[in-house]
Amino acid sequence: MTSQLDRSAAIGDPVFAYHRGGKLAVRATAPLQDADDLSLAYTPGVARVCTEIARRPEAVYDYTWKSSSVAVVSDGTAVLGLGDIGPEASLPVMEGKAILFRQLAGVNAVPLVLDCTDTDEIIETVVRLAPAFGGINLEDISAPRCFEIERRLQERLDIPVFHDDQHGTAVVTLAALWNAARVTGRRLGELRAVMAGAGASGVAVARILLDAGIGDIVVCDSKGIVHEGREDLNDEKRKLAAATNRRGLTGTIADAMRGADVFIGLSGSPMAEEPFATMAPDAIVLALSNPDPEIMPDRSARYAAVVGTGRSDFANQVNNVLAFPGIFAGALQTRAPRISEGMKLAAARALADVIADEASADRILPDSFDPRVAPAVTAAVAAAARAEGLARV
Amino acid sequence: MTSQLDRSAAIGDPVFAYHRGGKLAVRATAPLQDADDLSLAYTPGVARVCTEIARRPEAVYDYTWKSSSVAVVSDGTAVLGLGDIGPEASLPVMEGKAILFRQLAGVNAVPLVLDCTDTDEIIETVVRLAPAFGGINLEDISAPRCFEIERRLQERLDIPVFHDDQHGTAVVTLAALWNAARVTGRRLGELRAVMAGAGASGVAVARILLDAGIGDIVVCDSKGIVHEGREDLNDEKRKLAAATNRRGLTGTIADAMRGADVFIGLSGSPMAEEPFATMAPDAIVLALSNPDPEIMPDRSARYAAVVGTGRSDFANQVNNVLAFPGIFAGALQTRAPRISEGMKLAAARALADVIADEASADRILPDSFDPRVAPAVTAAVAAAARAEGLARV
Repeated sequence: MTSQLDRSAAIGDPVFAYHRGGKLAVRATAPLQDADDLSLAYTPGVARVCTEIARRPEAVYDYTWKSSSVAVVSDGTAVLGLGDIGPEASLPVMEGKAILFRQLAGVNAVPLVLDCTDTDEIIETVVRLAPAFGGINLEDISAPRCFEIERRLQERLDIPVFHDDQHGTAVVTLAALWNAARVTGRRLGELRAVMAGAGASGVAVARILLDAGIGDIVVCDSKGIVHEGREDLNDEKRKLAAATNRRGLTGTIADAMRGADVFIGLSGSPMAEEPFATMAPDAIVLALSNPDPEIMPDRSARYAAVVGTGRSDFANQVNNVLAFPGIFAGALQTRAPRISEGMKLAAARALADVIADEASADRILPDSFDPRVAPAVTAAVAAAARAEGLARV
Repeated sequence: MTSQLDRSAAIGDPVFAYHRGGKLAVRATAPLQDADDLSLAYTPGVARVCTEIARRPEAVYDYTWKSSSVAVVSDGTAVLGLGDIGPEASLPVMEGKAILFRQLAGVNAVPLVLDCTDTDEIIETVVRLAPAFGGINLEDISAPRCFEIERRLQERLDIPVFHDDQHGTAVVTLAALWNAARVTGRRLGELRAVMAGAGASGVAVARILLDAGIGDIVVCDSKGIVHEGREDLNDEKRKLAAATNRRGLTGTIADAMRGADVFIGLSGSPMAEEPFATMAPDAIVLALSNPDPEIMPDRSARYAAVVGTGRSDFANQVNNVLAFPGIFAGALQTRAPRISEGMKLAAARALADVIADEASADRILPDSFDPRVAPAVTAAVAAAARAEGLARV
């Protein structure tokens, strides 16, 4: 039972007041007022719909909410900047995600927080609960388990499996970079980029940047530059080392940053200011760690032409909210069985192009609630799915 | 892709038109229109709510939808009269259940259809996905697995686990019988009852009738009277044999029905008419199998004073819709860790009493949409939980 003290502590606090009773509800989309409605929605009428789906399995998309619904699945091991806080404590984040899916893209999202952290157990659980859903949004699952979980789930399921901390971040970061390059009069292919952080989001950002044509990218972790000569790399970092660092650099992040055009921070903590002073002219600094960026914007602005963070209280917030609702809406619309690299690139391009004519150094991304964003991303993702032959409707 | 033929076949058919796109949606219960809302619903504000739940676990009930949400879980093995049609084909039934939870009792229900049928796998899966939910409604899981699944899940979880096919049916049947006895001027304790069917619902009905004070009850399965001398009984039926049949009858259902006051049919199929002619005067016949009752009402009315079925097109429909929304609402309201026998009896009594002054031979139960039902059941279940010390709030 909640103590009087706890209750009064929350009274008047807008965050707790906002959350009281939770943030979402289930509602009926068809009338259910009398016995006639009941005979359609439930017995005896529903039996005919069940029989039709048993006979023709793809009809589940026509006559249930599978066509518009996504499970937001977490084990609560890597929640925001809070770390491993467990399933119940992560539920408010998943509910927040769910209402963003609904408000921004009309997707029905169900928060599912799992009382297990073992890779095999998570995979088995998600496979078993997948039939009711048109997609799986993995969320706040710690690295390196998140890589294997996503890969093996996608191999076993014929609906999209998308770890938003990786790919949502990657899509929005790429869009930001596209517009940052645009406002500084350059193209992505000309840029030398350095990344701080090789966790879940770092790996995904590096991959999408390579796919988008940034040839020169150097990734650093807490031990310095990720290069093929290192003996301490896990599988993901080994693959990164092979795909990046084409000049074969070794050393510290400061060594990497000398003369670089782009810095992307996903390291989780602040870093020294000096390396930023050694970057090339018109540098682009996206210091995305939350709540404490690698470098605060007032400092980075001394050395860079374009500055962004992950925070809502500064200009140029790199926020996944700009990507995941439209990405899933586009995938659901086409019943694509997965979200391909091409669909992610299309999402980033569409997101950047929403403000093509309005972009400036202080505005490389649309606002989170810009009503143009989700429809543009949805349409681009659906078109990419069709172009790649992934659409099933 | 749906063929043109399939699409046109469904056009104009009210059942398929009703189901197009599914029957439910998720909606936000708090405003989410601008960046200020976002900073409450999501980062950075939500982090404080997460931290509070990590510190004080019971706060998950205060600040998430756990306090009002139920998972409707099925493996699709025993769906309506259709049998084992699989998870996807069972989804329309679970969606129907979900919207009934919402419309009748304000409970948020999420349909979860599982791609597994192994007892251990179902149990593990439900245990893992339980943290987001305040209760588990098991549905359309075939016997005898349903008994073990419910029992072991309830042992492992501190939220109610309720197999509606068993206990919902039992509660409504008991309420019907209470009012049938009332309108024929008798008390439950005086009645001799015979049941046809010892499956999931039959076992549960027999148990609640015993708890409610019917001393003389004989259960029959396809082989005849369930008695302790039989060698072919599974565990559940062996327990039934020990708890029922106090006169030690053997033989066929026709032998059991001679002179009986009450017949309850949950056998799944029609039976011969002759045994009904041998029942006592003022007999009560509840022939609940769907879609084909054990005996049609026009026939049973020849031998009985009160007649009911499971069908909506005859008087006295015994329909679980009258019970499950209020039962879960009462359990959620009190955060009871399980739904006790006392809570079920209280639900049945409240359901019967809703029409205490209006009951007649043609009206032993309220209508499915009688707005008095769910509040009455909710209040009775909550009061019983409090009386038994099961309430946690």
